Amino acid sequence: MGYEFDVDTGVSTAGPGRYSAEITDRWHALSGAPVGGYPFVVALRALADAVPLPDPLAVSAHFLRPSETGPAEVRAETLRAGRRTATGQAALSQDGKERLRLTATFGDLAVAEGRTLLFGEPPALPAPDTLTDLLAASGLTGMSLLDRVEFRFGDPPGWLSGRPDGEPSCAFWVRFADGREPDTFALALFWDVMAPVVLDLGVPISTTLEATLHVRGRPAPGWVACRVASRYLTDGLCEEDMEMWDSAGALVAQSRQLTLLP
Amino acid sequence: MGYEFDVDTGVSTAGPGRYSAEITDRWHALSGAPVGGYPFVVALRALADAVPLPDPLAVSAHFLRPSETGPAEVRAETLRAGRRTATGQAALSQDGKERLRLTATFGDLAVAEGRTLLFGEPPALPAPDTLTDLLAASGLTGMSLLDRVEFRFGDPPGWLSGRPDGEPSCAFWVRFADGREPDTFALALFWDVMAPVVLDLGVPISTTLEATLHVRGRPAPGWVACRVASRYLTDGLCEEDMEMWDSAGALVAQSRQLTLLP
Repeated sequence: MGYEFDVDTGVSTAGPGRYSAEITDRWHALSGAPVGGYPFVVALRALADAVPLPDPLAVSAHFLRPSETGPAEVRAETLRAGRRTATGQAALSQDGKERLRLTATFGDLAVAEGRTLLFGEPPALPAPDTLTDLLAASGLTGMSLLDRVEFRFGDPPGWLSGRPDGEPSCAFWVRFADGREPDTFALALFWDVMAPVVLDLGVPISTTLEATLHVRGRPAPGWVACRVASRYLTDGLCEEDMEMWDSAGALVAQSRQLTLLP
Repeated sequence: MGYEFDVDTGVSTAGPGRYSAEITDRWHALSGAPVGGYPFVVALRALADAVPLPDPLAVSAHFLRPSETGPAEVRAETLRAGRRTATGQAALSQDGKERLRLTATFGDLAVAEGRTLLFGEPPALPAPDTLTDLLAASGLTGMSLLDRVEFRFGDPPGWLSGRPDGEPSCAFWVRFADGREPDTFALALFWDVMAPVVLDLGVPISTTLEATLHVRGRPAPGWVACRVASRYLTDGLCEEDMEMWDSAGALVAQSRQLTLLP
């Protein structure tokens, strides 16, 4: 029982600082393998069990090897626990090989206070219920993620209709298909649910070397609006930056990943 | 002998995977304490000794406690060493307390190849030799970094003359004062050498929780041009993003830090 995201990213205690998990085949990306954000959330949830504060504020992960469908073990440890922030680290392994090393600083966003001032706005997207799910209708195969996560584009990326448009950016709404509302752990998946925007430059695929997520707030219920862009391709390295805004118009996260292009 | 940066960030082997270092008083920030980028470089240099590839590509660090002047110990380990990339981790401690946990993926930028396409340009700055060193002339005290690093502003930030101008962004040239040319390790300091741009919002100081550096190229000799901005202050959390461009106009690094404002 429970929502798919919570079931599939759940961890069980396997000893002091040790957790077991199962990487399912239900969150596959375009590549036909688990999207990197999936083991990222699994490692983060194990770490959240070990750390005394509820919300990830800054999560950075280095991807050592691709994750695969099957059992996984996570070792998690607290590095420092203070009153306002606590930092810990998790290593996710499969078949004795480490796949992902993640470090995260946690806090409590329910009591966050301080200055708010924004020099930017949420993406200008039509209301999601006026839009259709072009990805689900695209006939893309092997991407089981599309059965778990719904997308709505205002201006769909060109690659989706087979015509890369030269613009490595897009904006879209995202939510879980089964009605699970977003929280700070959902944002730890959402940074990685969209296909790489460099597809619109004719680049066929990208590999994430490192990803960092900064969470700014607990999202309001409903759709999350995302703005994603790559600006600099240099000798086959490329960043991809995402902003996430909740249905009430608050900035709830930023992410940046460094990817390797073929 | 040797350049100040190399001497002060040097590490000595102290055992398998263990290094000793000395945090000097020569790289103090506005706060009158060592700038966070200084122990960041020390940890990175220890890790570089342990990892078989030369250039840091992605470095992420979580700051657990402030570093202090005095001896430091770094534990460093390789997590995975492949042909194109290798990832390792380092923990810098002082007095038995961990100050910084850093994870880095290395590569060899001399043989990097792949697509280059930029949707942005270097900051429009006048030639550095037409500009004066306003920071050195500012009378700021306690900031020993200013004896090691030279800055040139095109349009100086307002806070420098006591009039915060409401614009949390700036562009400047940077180089070492003693003639040391920049390399990828210098970029691992430069992300943190400028005072926080939120000073121009009247915010007195900021604390870095996490910082990630993406290195894109080995810089050409000469000045490095930096563009830095904060766009989103939310409940006392704020990102600071920097781009670094070398004297030949190539993008050589991007950084992002998450800071906590008082």
